[in-house]
Amino acid sequence: MNFELISEHGSFGGVQRFYRHASQQIGLPMRFALYVPPGGAKGLLVFLAGLTCTEETFTMKAGAQRRAAELGLALLMPDTSPRGEAVSALPGATESWDFGIGAGFYLDATQAPWDRHFRMDSYLMKELIPQVQAELGLDAARTGISGHSMGGHGALTLALRNPGAFVSLSAIAPIAAPSRCPWGVKAFTGYLGADRDAWPAHDASALMAAQPRVPYPGGILVDQGLADKFLVEQLYPEALESACATIGQDLFLRRHDGYDHGYYFIASVIDDHLIHHARQMGLQGR
Amino acid sequence: MNFELISEHGSFGGVQRFYRHASQQIGLPMRFALYVPPGGAKGLLVFLAGLTCTEETFTMKAGAQRRAAELGLALLMPDTSPRGEAVSALPGATESWDFGIGAGFYLDATQAPWDRHFRMDSYLMKELIPQVQAELGLDAARTGISGHSMGGHGALTLALRNPGAFVSLSAIAPIAAPSRCPWGVKAFTGYLGADRDAWPAHDASALMAAQPRVPYPGGILVDQGLADKFLVEQLYPEALESACATIGQDLFLRRHDGYDHGYYFIASVIDDHLIHHARQMGLQGR
Repeated sequence: MNFELISEHGSFGGVQRFYRHASQQIGLPMRFALYVPPGGAKGLLVFLAGLTCTEETFTMKAGAQRRAAELGLALLMPDTSPRGEAVSALPGATESWDFGIGAGFYLDATQAPWDRHFRMDSYLMKELIPQVQAELGLDAARTGISGHSMGGHGALTLALRNPGAFVSLSAIAPIAAPSRCPWGVKAFTGYLGADRDAWPAHDASALMAAQPRVPYPGGILVDQGLADKFLVEQLYPEALESACATIGQDLFLRRHDGYDHGYYFIASVIDDHLIHHARQMGLQGR
Repeated sequence: MNFELISEHGSFGGVQRFYRHASQQIGLPMRFALYVPPGGAKGLLVFLAGLTCTEETFTMKAGAQRRAAELGLALLMPDTSPRGEAVSALPGATESWDFGIGAGFYLDATQAPWDRHFRMDSYLMKELIPQVQAELGLDAARTGISGHSMGGHGALTLALRNPGAFVSLSAIAPIAAPSRCPWGVKAFTGYLGADRDAWPAHDASALMAAQPRVPYPGGILVDQGLADKFLVEQLYPEALESACATIGQDLFLRRHDGYDHGYYFIASVIDDHLIHHARQMGLQGR
C-alpha cells in the first residue's frame, strides 16, 4: 500500500480518514476518503459522488458514518476526476462544471487529450478498490457500490460492466441513460468521441438491457426525488426501470415527493442504502 | 414576519429552509436556516455555530435533522456575524478568521466601529428567536439552545444572561472561559474594550459562578473531544466544571478520546444533545 494519510477524525466510534496516493492508472496523485467502523470492517461500500464533488462531499454531508458504524461497513469515497496542473491546463478542463475537472464520469476516456489522465474506470476497478479491499481484508462478496447523480451512473455502469466485482448495487438520483441527456452527451462526446457506437458500454440502461442474466438477484435500490430539477432532462430513471423489466432484474425504484437533487435528500435515504448493501453482504439477517 | 425564503429542501420528512431578512438590530440583511420537522414543531433548538461558519455549516454537516424529525424538534441555525460591504469595509473585519466577519461571538459590541452592526446578542434575543418562536407557536418552555466552540460560548452566555429564556442548555467543545484564552481576549478587547470589567458578563464560567440560583436544574450537557487541538489553549471546560460545582449546577461534561474539534465529532454526539433538549421540554419521557 502506498497511501499517505492526510488527516483522520474520530467518527461514531470509528475513524474517518483522508488519503493521498500516486495513482499509476491516472498518472497523477489522487485523493480519497475511507471510513473504518469501530471493530474493523465487515463489509465495504464504495460511494461515487456527483458532478463538482470531491472525496470530501459525501463524506461530510451525507451522515452515512452513523449507520455504517452500526452495520460494520467501511465507506470508500473516491474523488470524481483527476486534478492538478496537468489536468487544469487542458483546454476545456475548467470552463464548465459538467465536464473536465470534477466530472470524470467514472470511465476511461478514449479521446485526446482526456485519454492521458481521465481513466477513472481503470483507476477504481484495477487500482483503488482492489488496494482498499486488500487493506481491509475483504473480497467482492463483501463489497457493494452506490453513488449519486453522475456517481449513480458510475455505480450502475461499473457494476454492470464488471460482473462479480460487487455483491450489491444501489444509486441515488442516478444519470440512468446518459446517451440521451445533455450531461451524458457532452461527456461521452468529449471523452469517448462523437461515434455513438462506443456509448452503450457506458450507459446504465443500455448495459442493463443487454445483460445475459440477472446481474443482481437481490435487487437494486434506486431513490429519486420528485422535486429534483434535473429529473426530466437529465436522469431518466424510467429508462433503467424499463431495462430492468426487460431482463427480469428486480429494481426497487422509490420516487419521493418533495425531495430535490441535493444532499438533504441523500442524507434522508442513505440509511436505507447502507442496510440494502449490508443485507446483500449477509451482515444483517432481516 | 418578514422572512424571505431563499431555498427549501425536503429532509427526513420535514423541510430544511433558508431565509434572508432585514434585521433591525443588526441594521443589515441577515440569513438563517430553519428546519421544521414532519407534523410541525413541538419544540425549538437554537444551534449557534463556531468561528468561520455560516447558517449553512451546522445545517449541512451535523446530520441533526434525522433525530430532530423523530423528536419533533425544529432547528434554528443563525449566521455567526453581520456580513456585507458595510461590514467588510471595516478595518480588521476580514484580516483574520477569529475576529470580525464569521466571528461575532454572539454579543453586542460596545466599541467603535463594531458597535454599529455587531449586535448578535440583541439580534438573537430580541429579534430572531422571538420571531421564530412566534412563527412556530412555541414559547421558552419549548426552546433550548446549544452551540459549538464560539457557538458553545454563545449558547452558554446567552442562556445564563437571560434567565427563563430557554428551558434547556448544552454545548459541544465550547469556549468556556473566553477571558483567559487567545480567541476570547482578542474578541473581547476588540468588541468590548480593553477594560476587563466588562468581560465577565460575557464569560460563561464567570457568569456561572455568579448565578444566584441553579439556572438549569435538569443539568447541562457538554461534550469535549480529547484530540481537540484547541482544547488546552482555547476551551477551558474545567473552568466551567469548577463554576458549576461552585453553585451546585449539574454538568454532564463528557470527555471523548480520539475526537477532534470538527464536524465529525459534532455529528457523533448531536443525537444525544437533541435528546437532552427534548427531555427538558417534556417531549421524551424516558
